[in-house]
Amino acid sequence: MMTEIETGTRPTTQLQGHLARVSDMLDRHRLVEELANREGPVDHEAVEVHRRTLAELQAQIDKLHPADVAHILDALPPEDRLSVWNLVKADRDGEILLEVSDAVRESLLADMDAPEILAAAEQLDADELADLAEDLPDDVVHELMQRLDAPEREQLRSAMSYDEDQVGAIMDFEMITIREDVTLEVVLRYLRFLKEIPEQTDKLFVVNSDNVLTGVLPLKWLLVNDPARMVSDVMAVDANTFHPDEDVAETAQAFERYDLISAPVVDVDGRLIGRLTIEAMVDVIREESDAETLSRGGLREDEDIFASVWKSLRNRWAWLAINLVTAFIASRVIGLFEGSITKLVALAALMPIVAGIGGNSGNQTITMIVRALALGQVSPASATRLLRKEVIVALMNGLVWGGVIGMVAWLLYGSAALGLVMTAAMTLNLLLAALMGVLIPMSLIRFGRDPAIGSSVLITALTDSGGFFIFLGLATLFLI
Amino acid sequence: MMTEIETGTRPTTQLQGHLARVSDMLDRHRLVEELANREGPVDHEAVEVHRRTLAELQAQIDKLHPADVAHILDALPPEDRLSVWNLVKADRDGEILLEVSDAVRESLLADMDAPEILAAAEQLDADELADLAEDLPDDVVHELMQRLDAPEREQLRSAMSYDEDQVGAIMDFEMITIREDVTLEVVLRYLRFLKEIPEQTDKLFVVNSDNVLTGVLPLKWLLVNDPARMVSDVMAVDANTFHPDEDVAETAQAFERYDLISAPVVDVDGRLIGRLTIEAMVDVIREESDAETLSRGGLREDEDIFASVWKSLRNRWAWLAINLVTAFIASRVIGLFEGSITKLVALAALMPIVAGIGGNSGNQTITMIVRALALGQVSPASATRLLRKEVIVALMNGLVWGGVIGMVAWLLYGSAALGLVMTAAMTLNLLLAALMGVLIPMSLIRFGRDPAIGSSVLITALTDSGGFFIFLGLATLFLI
Repeated sequence: MMTEIETGTRPTTQLQGHLARVSDMLDRHRLVEELANREGPVDHEAVEVHRRTLAELQAQIDKLHPADVAHILDALPPEDRLSVWNLVKADRDGEILLEVSDAVRESLLADMDAPEILAAAEQLDADELADLAEDLPDDVVHELMQRLDAPEREQLRSAMSYDEDQVGAIMDFEMITIREDVTLEVVLRYLRFLKEIPEQTDKLFVVNSDNVLTGVLPLKWLLVNDPARMVSDVMAVDANTFHPDEDVAETAQAFERYDLISAPVVDVDGRLIGRLTIEAMVDVIREESDAETLSRGGLREDEDIFASVWKSLRNRWAWLAINLVTAFIASRVIGLFEGSITKLVALAALMPIVAGIGGNSGNQTITMIVRALALGQVSPASATRLLRKEVIVALMNGLVWGGVIGMVAWLLYGSAALGLVMTAAMTLNLLLAALMGVLIPMSLIRFGRDPAIGSSVLITALTDSGGFFIFLGLATLFLI
Repeated sequence: MMTEIETGTRPTTQLQGHLARVSDMLDRHRLVEELANREGPVDHEAVEVHRRTLAELQAQIDKLHPADVAHILDALPPEDRLSVWNLVKADRDGEILLEVSDAVRESLLADMDAPEILAAAEQLDADELADLAEDLPDDVVHELMQRLDAPEREQLRSAMSYDEDQVGAIMDFEMITIREDVTLEVVLRYLRFLKEIPEQTDKLFVVNSDNVLTGVLPLKWLLVNDPARMVSDVMAVDANTFHPDEDVAETAQAFERYDLISAPVVDVDGRLIGRLTIEAMVDVIREESDAETLSRGGLREDEDIFASVWKSLRNRWAWLAINLVTAFIASRVIGLFEGSITKLVALAALMPIVAGIGGNSGNQTITMIVRALALGQVSPASATRLLRKEVIVALMNGLVWGGVIGMVAWLLYGSAALGLVMTAAMTLNLLLAALMGVLIPMSLIRFGRDPAIGSSVLITALTDSGGFFIFLGLATLFLI
């Protein structure tokens, strides 16, 4: 019981230490293995040393928290990862599988046979199994279902029936329920009888005989109130509750806003069906921000840094291909004006500036609006207001920065007209960027898409092609 | 007591409802105000209606959770924001100021005079004051200090002495300490005597007479164990503890890894000086991801969507200026080859493709490596391995996509040589992107900089100028 939450002080620094130590032992292990497997007579000493380093490594791993083992597995190259994985005691497999990153989990599961997977899965609760199930072969999932008792099977089936962005998919079933017509003293005795309270429990759920939630009893109120008082007298009746079909990102925002640690999940009739914890919400927040970072960086999904070249290529090709298409379109726009460029080659040197600044400015607008949309700060009513502001900002930027660059172009190429065209093109492209920077995320939202994903690529494509077209078009009209 | 954590079901949907209702009332209010202020004889009916709508709005706001009021303030345009702010009961000012976004907090404080600020600040704890202090005028902070009692003043001074990315700046001082030589029964009685347990308390801190932390007692262990047992017998001795000078981002990762809800902060001698909570950690995680999103989008800081044009310009100019400089450099690189472009104008149309794909690919590499660095998955030992992999991926991408684009260029412009130069330039620029994608974040880390900020701009600048140089250089050598 005393080692449940602990691993010692300064966890992060220490964690890097664990990783270094394990890597070290693995190197030593490999060296000895080579010695032991050398041709010629068996080197008994080397075999003995080999056995000893393995035992040492095993001991080191056994001492670590499952989350720390998972971190080490994430950070090791594939061969070393499997060496360590094979040393992990079978009764910790399940927990560790839950903690590693998606990419690493796949690689570990690929190395396990069905009986091993089943053994690992047996240590897990229904909600944890649901997280794992999508990565498991169908026959293993089927076998697993057989082994569960009826209520657990029901829980697993229910958890698997929700989309991964719905509350139902991340709720757990470890909750303590009490009745409201008993005293706190009875509740205290009941808890002592249970002997264990699930992790992340800050409140007990009060239900009636139909399992309808009638209130919640925070542990701290249980502790500070007179044990002779009734639960109904102390409990909070208007708790924050959630429905299984609600969006997890919005739920996480509610957890943040009201500083919740756990909350009940109820069905449409108010019946208690599960529990949400801050632990699951922190994962949601982290994953949400990860998904955004990855998509902005042009990656389809989380990439194991030691993934095979082939896997990396597949992960990156989608965005590269999209980028190639948009770049090709921009290139064809330039192609339209080849005649003008031949006559005035300065256009070729200046055109990337117009496109680049437009892209940068459009990304600024879009970043701000996507954020405000995610935080629920933009309503349709404020859209016009925002658009007006962005247009003014774009005009100012166009006149100031476009003016500067126009002057530079004038000085460099000795043509005031070229400078003027440059300024005008910059201003128009910035206006296009502002307009699209507001309209793209608003439209994506209207069509039920996540504006954080893809809008950056879209705006850059528009300001590139648009910038080239505006600049070269103006130049053709006025300079050629 | 019963309304402390609650605001009813489905908080997010409801929140949008609150916002809509308040906006509605404000519109009505404005309309009536116009009527009431019309020239001519005083319209007593209009004045009455005006008074009534205000009272209604006030009642609506008073019913809301402080976090919900903050959300509404964040989402309203400046004039409406101040109208609502003036209706907020003075005794909730402090709490709400803590919850609004940085930009909105500034605007609200600007509207308050010193006595109002002092009154608001009086409702806050020392650690909350520390969060607010940086936005307050110096004389107000000084006045505040005078009003605190000695231990609180010490706490405030201590909290303000740390950088905002250090644990000391976000710890609070609301903790319950107990001695280890008493029974659980005594602890239970002590809690009932205290009558209140701070929010986010999942464990009590056990200290000796020198205030040195000797263990922690989770509330759940207190609840399930025999009250006759001694604290020393039940407590966990090797709790996760943190030091005030530790990095908050790493600390947040430890909270995630070990599913902590609260943890003690101790000084070098092991003396208890404060407490960290998951609530503060969730803020850290959110802010970290925000800072990254903003910087990737080219924004310096969080922007209030209704900020003045002038404020928006200041927020965006830093990155626009940097972008302008890098675009100008790329433009000068093209300028070097104007002779070649005049002779073969196809180069002008094709060069943005080489630069664009290089930028995209470099951003993919950098995103992956920055993530791995942040998660502590990359060690110096794995750097060479990573570099090798990225170089192979770049080579493959260059040959495949460069090959495709080379073919297209050949078909479009009828020159096999031009196609070959295109393929070669793409491959070389992708290699440059891979090399820099690994080296830039690694070097930023070595120089103690945050690789998440600025590395995207740097890689794009390099692949732009590099791409133009490689492509036009090769073309000049082999085609002109």
